[in-house]
Amino acid sequence: MHAEIITIGEELLIGQIVNTNAAWIAERLNEAGVKVRQVSVVSDTEEEILRVLSEAFERSSLVLMTGGLGPTRDDVTKLALCHFFNTSLVLNQEVLEDVRMLFSQRKLPLTELNRQQALVPEAARVIRNAHGTAPGLWLEKEGKICVAMPGVPYEMKTMMDEYIIPELKKQRKNHYIVHRTILTQGIGESFLSEIISDWENNLPSFIKLAYLPSPGMVRLRLSASGRSEKELTKALAQQEAKLAELIPEYIWGFDRDTLEGVIGKLLVEKGLTVSTAESCTGGYLAHKITSVAGSSAYFMGSIVAYANELKSRFLWVDKKLIEKHGAVSRQVVETMALNGCQTMSSDFCVATSGIAGPGGGTPEKPVGTVWIAVAHGEKVSSKLLHLGDQRDRNIARATLAALALLREKILEA
Amino acid sequence: MHAEIITIGEELLIGQIVNTNAAWIAERLNEAGVKVRQVSVVSDTEEEILRVLSEAFERSSLVLMTGGLGPTRDDVTKLALCHFFNTSLVLNQEVLEDVRMLFSQRKLPLTELNRQQALVPEAARVIRNAHGTAPGLWLEKEGKICVAMPGVPYEMKTMMDEYIIPELKKQRKNHYIVHRTILTQGIGESFLSEIISDWENNLPSFIKLAYLPSPGMVRLRLSASGRSEKELTKALAQQEAKLAELIPEYIWGFDRDTLEGVIGKLLVEKGLTVSTAESCTGGYLAHKITSVAGSSAYFMGSIVAYANELKSRFLWVDKKLIEKHGAVSRQVVETMALNGCQTMSSDFCVATSGIAGPGGGTPEKPVGTVWIAVAHGEKVSSKLLHLGDQRDRNIARATLAALALLREKILEA
Repeated sequence: MHAEIITIGEELLIGQIVNTNAAWIAERLNEAGVKVRQVSVVSDTEEEILRVLSEAFERSSLVLMTGGLGPTRDDVTKLALCHFFNTSLVLNQEVLEDVRMLFSQRKLPLTELNRQQALVPEAARVIRNAHGTAPGLWLEKEGKICVAMPGVPYEMKTMMDEYIIPELKKQRKNHYIVHRTILTQGIGESFLSEIISDWENNLPSFIKLAYLPSPGMVRLRLSASGRSEKELTKALAQQEAKLAELIPEYIWGFDRDTLEGVIGKLLVEKGLTVSTAESCTGGYLAHKITSVAGSSAYFMGSIVAYANELKSRFLWVDKKLIEKHGAVSRQVVETMALNGCQTMSSDFCVATSGIAGPGGGTPEKPVGTVWIAVAHGEKVSSKLLHLGDQRDRNIARATLAALALLREKILEA
Repeated sequence: MHAEIITIGEELLIGQIVNTNAAWIAERLNEAGVKVRQVSVVSDTEEEILRVLSEAFERSSLVLMTGGLGPTRDDVTKLALCHFFNTSLVLNQEVLEDVRMLFSQRKLPLTELNRQQALVPEAARVIRNAHGTAPGLWLEKEGKICVAMPGVPYEMKTMMDEYIIPELKKQRKNHYIVHRTILTQGIGESFLSEIISDWENNLPSFIKLAYLPSPGMVRLRLSASGRSEKELTKALAQQEAKLAELIPEYIWGFDRDTLEGVIGKLLVEKGLTVSTAESCTGGYLAHKITSVAGSSAYFMGSIVAYANELKSRFLWVDKKLIEKHGAVSRQVVETMALNGCQTMSSDFCVATSGIAGPGGGTPEKPVGTVWIAVAHGEKVSSKLLHLGDQRDRNIARATLAALALLREKILEA
């Protein structure tokens, strides 16, 4: 079964929002063994929706749409669906009840606009919306399926997980796609490619390899397709083992692992704790660590000492040290890390100090100059990074590098 | 001129990465007055690229592509372009020099794979890549333009800003689209829609309105199109003024304003400073504030007191207070905010304490229970939030609510 995703909305076409819905749906479909052939984004006019829906329906047997189902008048997906499936809008009592219930729970009056959410194409099977007013719509024609969902991510995701994916799994005809992504760090794409060239050439034809570079890391994705999920998983495990022998020092995780997640597991295993002492990363390091569920078991806290006086007050960095070497220096960042372990009672402390930009650079220390350090008790390791001139990118890359150094030091502990 | 964007890569179709390139390109094109008709995502096979390129070229006069230009063998965009434009690959000396230079600067050996980056379609104009090895390619046929760019965001963005957008502006034929987005908070989409219904009905036909809801806020986007940029801007300003009279209390910003950016401006104007004392937001509040360039002028720092002992050590929260009311309580969060002002020497302090989930909930304080507080000297205001059960969403919404409360209190100051 091939699928297509159509996301509707001017806001996507003018770049006001990023299409996270499409990525999420694609990921779920893939896990269910459904290959996505194309994603299309069009504006919320009836003509454009009709055109792109007809094209997708021609090519593929499943079309998932999001957007254009809200109560305001710029939402025209239902009209396009009626046209394409040759049906008309009728009032659905069940949906009306759901909408009524939702509004009464929230103690809000039911407006005429919201009542219109209960108008659905007669030929559609209704997918109830647990979190909002617009129902999902499941339509079929010539053995092919079209499902329209609201564009609000939370509402769409619940419909996918609770109804659509289970329905699709029932219909799947023994074709599986299994993915395995190997996460590497510390080596560029072209060098990696040369080292693993022989291995890559000897991959069986049903396994495909893709390089997915992103700032500071390269992910290697293996995709195997065939009739037996068990065989595919086995074949991928064999290839992964061969790869692990070639580049053991660069692999730090798999699939959806994150550096902060891997670090969390290591800390729990070893019964150790961590804190952060941040300047240029401004809390992003603490945010990354605390984005992991259960991080309160090993994360003590963070001192974000943006003002130098807070570096002295909470991290006991001598003012003279700052005057002598500058806040962005090995001496200061190592002191922050070492003292952070003590003042926050943690086994490890990760510290950052740098010039995130766009202002604040000097000829000796241009924007992008960042010191990172990891202390473990009385030992400390530090590293100087030369990053670029974009603030958000510098914060993200400094955080990634600091987490990578932390992981190394935890492994050594 | 209508444009289409084609982004190429399996990683987008399996949802491993989100299509931020498409959003960024769309935004830049719109600012340049070029309307984007469709965004398409396809896999990196020659057949699929050819198909989607032919379709887009049929419908629109400009096609921008990203991806599939890298040095590894899963990158086939150049072959598809040669096929479509009936040309063949030739070695480009200028590109070869650029690649050589880049590798010598980085003190890395030039591999055969990287040398292949200098092979380009003979009919293409080459766009030099300041940050990587794959050049951009500009091709024309029947008065229409196709531009292929690498998928690495930083490389693509530089090409767009320094070459492609300036070229397109030269070719623009006096058609303008002007957008104005009004950012509101504290009211739901359907209620807002009723209040502004008359205003909406009386909009001139060349101005379109779209509702863009996202968690905790609704953005209203007005788009005007026509031949005079000045007239359009004036018409939008008139409509905006009318709208501002209808809903003054809900509007907090415009266009790409962020709450943290608006807050930064207010603090600079008033010469005031802020700090944060965070528990459940885990540093995300500090990160948001410090994501604004120049925030070091008004942001002192943050105590992320994840462990209760750090709440006592750095924010002087009495252990007995925590024992009596729990860490997630009005009493504790107000104390954190009040003491935070003192210990971090700031005019304002924003504090959060809550249960982000998925674990840690109790019948009285289920997951999603969050207290936020803003202190200003000896005054403090707090608020109880009942959020959902998703950790990342709870952190983001608590942060947004805390920033909104901070903005209110700064305005009152």
